[in-house]
Amino acid sequence: MMPASDRLDATFAALADPTRRAILARLALGEASVTELAEPFAMSQPAISKHLKVLERAGLISRGRDAQRRLSRIEAKPLEEANGWLEGYRQFWETRFQHLDALLDAVRSHMGDEGAADGDAPKRRRPRKK
Amino acid sequence: MMPASDRLDATFAALADPTRRAILARLALGEASVTELAEPFAMSQPAISKHLKVLERAGLISRGRDAQRRLSRIEAKPLEEANGWLEGYRQFWETRFQHLDALLDAVRSHMGDEGAADGDAPKRRRPRKK
Repeated sequence: MMPASDRLDATFAALADPTRRAILARLALGEASVTELAEPFAMSQPAISKHLKVLERAGLISRGRDAQRRLSRIEAKPLEEANGWLEGYRQFWETRFQHLDALLDAVRSHMGDEGAADGDAPKRRRPRKK
Repeated sequence: MMPASDRLDATFAALADPTRRAILARLALGEASVTELAEPFAMSQPAISKHLKVLERAGLISRGRDAQRRLSRIEAKPLEEANGWLEGYRQFWETRFQHLDALLDAVRSHMGDEGAADGDAPKRRRPRKK
């Protein structure tokens, strides 16, 4: 088994392609053969097979052994690990958006004050650094 | 601005490297210069600069214009978008794990039955295919 960091490398690299993400979206609905996967894409089966190999090496899919109708199946684990890594930053971006919300609220209440301020010139506030 | 799919490509590609992920982890604690970022890594400043360029192109960091002390800063948006994409699969892996839990419960209650079965040989079950 790959070390966790190598697995994340492989997962993120595999996800960095729109066709591979679309293949995963299709496989989330159920197993599919290469022929079925190639249909919605303007792509040859060998091109799709190449993408499947990348997904398989990253552990994002597994493939049946039946040579006639080799079904691909999505695997949940690497997606969950990648999500786990990103979740570590959730607090970070949520805090960032709370700051933006607070800033917007301040701007709105400031505009409200102006409306109620009998035509006084609005107080100049130091702009908040971005 | 890049289309959403191109942004995801760039984000996932940028995240597919352990040094770049470590740089982001450091920047989540606060802004840092290239010198500060290079310190914990056995890496030259030019090598770190190269990674910073990849992160900057993906929008994962922004960089100050002060040439003397050009601070890098993490940007929340692309991380949130990548997380949003993965969240689309949350139900999928949670269902998968519920199935595994149910299977484990079944196995455990089966073993419990055996334990209470006066030394009867355990019933042979067909192994479930992986």
